[in-house]
Amino acid sequence: MFISFEGGEGCGKTTQIALLHDWLTSLGHPVIQTREPGGTALGQALRTLLLDPRSELGSTSELLLYAADRAEHVERVVRPALTAGRIVLCDRFSDSTVAYQGYGRRLDLALIERLNRIATGGLTPDLTFWLKLDARTGLERRRDPDRFEAESLAFHRRIEAGFAELALRHPERIRLIDASLSVEQTARQIRDIVDKFLNKNQSKLRE
Amino acid sequence: MFISFEGGEGCGKTTQIALLHDWLTSLGHPVIQTREPGGTALGQALRTLLLDPRSELGSTSELLLYAADRAEHVERVVRPALTAGRIVLCDRFSDSTVAYQGYGRRLDLALIERLNRIATGGLTPDLTFWLKLDARTGLERRRDPDRFEAESLAFHRRIEAGFAELALRHPERIRLIDASLSVEQTARQIRDIVDKFLNKNQSKLRE
Repeated sequence: MFISFEGGEGCGKTTQIALLHDWLTSLGHPVIQTREPGGTALGQALRTLLLDPRSELGSTSELLLYAADRAEHVERVVRPALTAGRIVLCDRFSDSTVAYQGYGRRLDLALIERLNRIATGGLTPDLTFWLKLDARTGLERRRDPDRFEAESLAFHRRIEAGFAELALRHPERIRLIDASLSVEQTARQIRDIVDKFLNKNQSKLRE
Repeated sequence: MFISFEGGEGCGKTTQIALLHDWLTSLGHPVIQTREPGGTALGQALRTLLLDPRSELGSTSELLLYAADRAEHVERVVRPALTAGRIVLCDRFSDSTVAYQGYGRRLDLALIERLNRIATGGLTPDLTFWLKLDARTGLERRRDPDRFEAESLAFHRRIEAGFAELALRHPERIRLIDASLSVEQTARQIRDIVDKFLNKNQSKLRE
């Protein structure tokens, strides 16, 4: 089972992934927690290049670096873990590229989808949590802004619109989570959905 | 005028580019000398990742990193220099990706051409020198092999075959240079071709 977490800046993904990880582990599930960019040795190096506010990067090379990070991450981390029967919790995946580079940077969406397919080899999450939070609120939570957080509010509003569009297009996979609530209330929404998903899969296996 | 230099390991590109640069400068032409990977700040970081023999990189992410390097290089270095009326001498360009990742790594050639188009925005060299040298001879010239030089002789033979195929497909653009001759004899072959090319362009301009 492959679960990705998506959302704008400051939406609380990292905290929620850690909580879900602990909950699943306490139930006896084998889980790994990973992220993009940065889930591999190459990814760590690229993460620095991509997020450092001093990096001056063209939009196309930024897009291609994300694709390179994803190709490496899928091949070396995500697929092997799934094959070994683990639940993979991933902080950002293909949807972030559509939202940030497609809607935020206004790059061609068809090109982004082609690159996502090349990078993932067709792998899609089973479940994606979109932690929805007003862009302004999310940005206010941040200190020491990285290269993306330093962008304008309008940029972050476009990203929000991008996630909304994706959620409309993939209602089965992408679940909207109200991330303006408390950490515990947000965590409960996520746990309920994962719980149902796991039960449904188990009854499918029993049939 | 955009001139790229291609060829296998140890074929003498760097030396020949420096000689051509000096010759063109002595004739009063404004010239810049650049290379892939590595012609930009991003490119320098990627060059280390791509060539370090300790980097473990999947073929797809390798290909995408080359594309990211090229996109940045074309946008920030090559196009601005061409617009400013300079002659650009580039150590490796798109053909290397076809030869190394397509023929060497056996990645899908159609995919490589799509990525090359994305990265270059359609920019093609006016002239490409393929410095042809037997793969074994070239490798023997190298100490401290990088990640590519450390590959098998069979890998380098496939790259040679890749360049040969490209030269057949683009006979007007790609010129075969016998790089087994002395440095001076090799340089003379290159100068003669550039000289003719410049004269042809000048008479076109006069017409």
